Amino acid sequence: MTGTDQAAKAVTAAAVESFRDTPDPRLRELLQGLVRHLHSYVRELRPTIQEWEYAVEYLTAVGRKCDPTRQEFILLSDVLGVSMLVETVNEEGGGTESTVLGPFHVVESPKRESGDGIDLMSVGEPCVVALRVTSADGSPLAGASVDVWQCSTDGFYDVQQPDIQPLGNGRGLFRTDDEGRVWFRTVVPSHYPIPTDGPVGVLLDATGRHPYRPAHIHFIVEADGHRPLTTHIFVADGPYLDSDAVFAVKESLVADFAQVDEAERARAYQVTAPFRLAEFDIAVQPETNKDAG
Amino acid sequence: MTGTDQAAKAVTAAAVESFRDTPDPRLRELLQGLVRHLHSYVRELRPTIQEWEYAVEYLTAVGRKCDPTRQEFILLSDVLGVSMLVETVNEEGGGTESTVLGPFHVVESPKRESGDGIDLMSVGEPCVVALRVTSADGSPLAGASVDVWQCSTDGFYDVQQPDIQPLGNGRGLFRTDDEGRVWFRTVVPSHYPIPTDGPVGVLLDATGRHPYRPAHIHFIVEADGHRPLTTHIFVADGPYLDSDAVFAVKESLVADFAQVDEAERARAYQVTAPFRLAEFDIAVQPETNKDAG
Repeated sequence: MTGTDQAAKAVTAAAVESFRDTPDPRLRELLQGLVRHLHSYVRELRPTIQEWEYAVEYLTAVGRKCDPTRQEFILLSDVLGVSMLVETVNEEGGGTESTVLGPFHVVESPKRESGDGIDLMSVGEPCVVALRVTSADGSPLAGASVDVWQCSTDGFYDVQQPDIQPLGNGRGLFRTDDEGRVWFRTVVPSHYPIPTDGPVGVLLDATGRHPYRPAHIHFIVEADGHRPLTTHIFVADGPYLDSDAVFAVKESLVADFAQVDEAERARAYQVTAPFRLAEFDIAVQPETNKDAG
Repeated sequence: MTGTDQAAKAVTAAAVESFRDTPDPRLRELLQGLVRHLHSYVRELRPTIQEWEYAVEYLTAVGRKCDPTRQEFILLSDVLGVSMLVETVNEEGGGTESTVLGPFHVVESPKRESGDGIDLMSVGEPCVVALRVTSADGSPLAGASVDVWQCSTDGFYDVQQPDIQPLGNGRGLFRTDDEGRVWFRTVVPSHYPIPTDGPVGVLLDATGRHPYRPAHIHFIVEADGHRPLTTHIFVADGPYLDSDAVFAVKESLVADFAQVDEAERARAYQVTAPFRLAEFDIAVQPETNKDAG
């Protein structure tokens, strides 16, 4: 071991030790682990002073890009696969798979009734999404809340186009009926690029990565006595399903948005044929003691 | 291996692989390494979604605290020991030891002549710092630039007290003479708390850590054909030498600020006795081919 290696180990030991008196044991564990892993990165990759300065400037720029409707740190976490990994390590298996929250859950969804439309623009391919929410054992969950958000047919969320889309376009907060069902009218969402006009765009550009996400609709499902579930459904057969910029595609979440031509079925959903219909079951898991603790 | 472990490994593999086409090989190495180490942290510590959300909010707050005279990300890097570790792994041994840049090198130091004062407040214990800059083999380096910055006797840098201290107080950019010497008049700096009115202060408070740094004077020394050196000298016998909040103390950098009572020596330095005198030699290393590359 060279003198510098010894000196480096001493710095790591001192930084880990500095957190020894942290009153909250979980915070202590998270911070001491953070120091160990960050230091292990520095010791392996040996960034130069200039590279470290660039990293500081980069993170500063990420922070300064954030505002109430733009969350560049979530976006950075997303493109590094960290958001998806956090989702994955928190999954217990058994119900519908989870996936990333993404950076666009930044405003409250307006309360809507089953059958309402969430599309306020009337541009795009008419679509009905019909969900059934159950517990992991298949029993329907009445009164579960289903928070929905999606982009427009042009690939933008309401908050990205404040001059074009009314706030709340593509969003809705629903409750399931006695059979655990809820449905709503919308337009088929488009694939879209994540925002590239900030530091995350610089990163993608410098690394030859495309910024696209396959078309999807976001959900957060919450039911009494169950773990909240954050997930998407992805539109089958669209582009970028195999190269999502944020690594969030799971096969079980890819849903058929089938074309329906029958006028009678269209009438049942208060739309005109032809329309696209996605039927999807969402199963959430009962809470465990661990969740309560 | 459980299904979730396999899914987690798949996320990491996809995120590492996404950087495969990065044109710059060093950027590719740094980013793929970053993904591996960040993911290894997440897999070991298994942060909950709420903990991840807190981390995102925390980093956002760090970025938003930054402005042209406040660098909260450097401060965060400092208190996690990362800045000191980066310095340490970049050290090649042989010359004066380096230490962290710190967050206060945010304005240009005014050009001054050897013998000038850098203290514009005239409050504190009069002090002379006499340096000799040499190459690693001991040969004096003429015309080397020596950038100096320090806090006041009250423990604040000029940029922290814009209403009290004139900008440039405690700062100076000097050149060494033909013998590699430079000296300046100042006041003995105080130990001080790093700024605690931002997210880094929240971190220190939550973890029971004190915010103090032992008294020191910063230097960046640059000489033709030599590696730039960023270092401090620390005032011997002051508090916090053994618990610096940013882990930057090295024994070789602790300097005696000896009291001098002789009127003749005071006259030679254009001060009045008694005063404190720190004499310190700084050796910088010749550039290697690696530096040029």
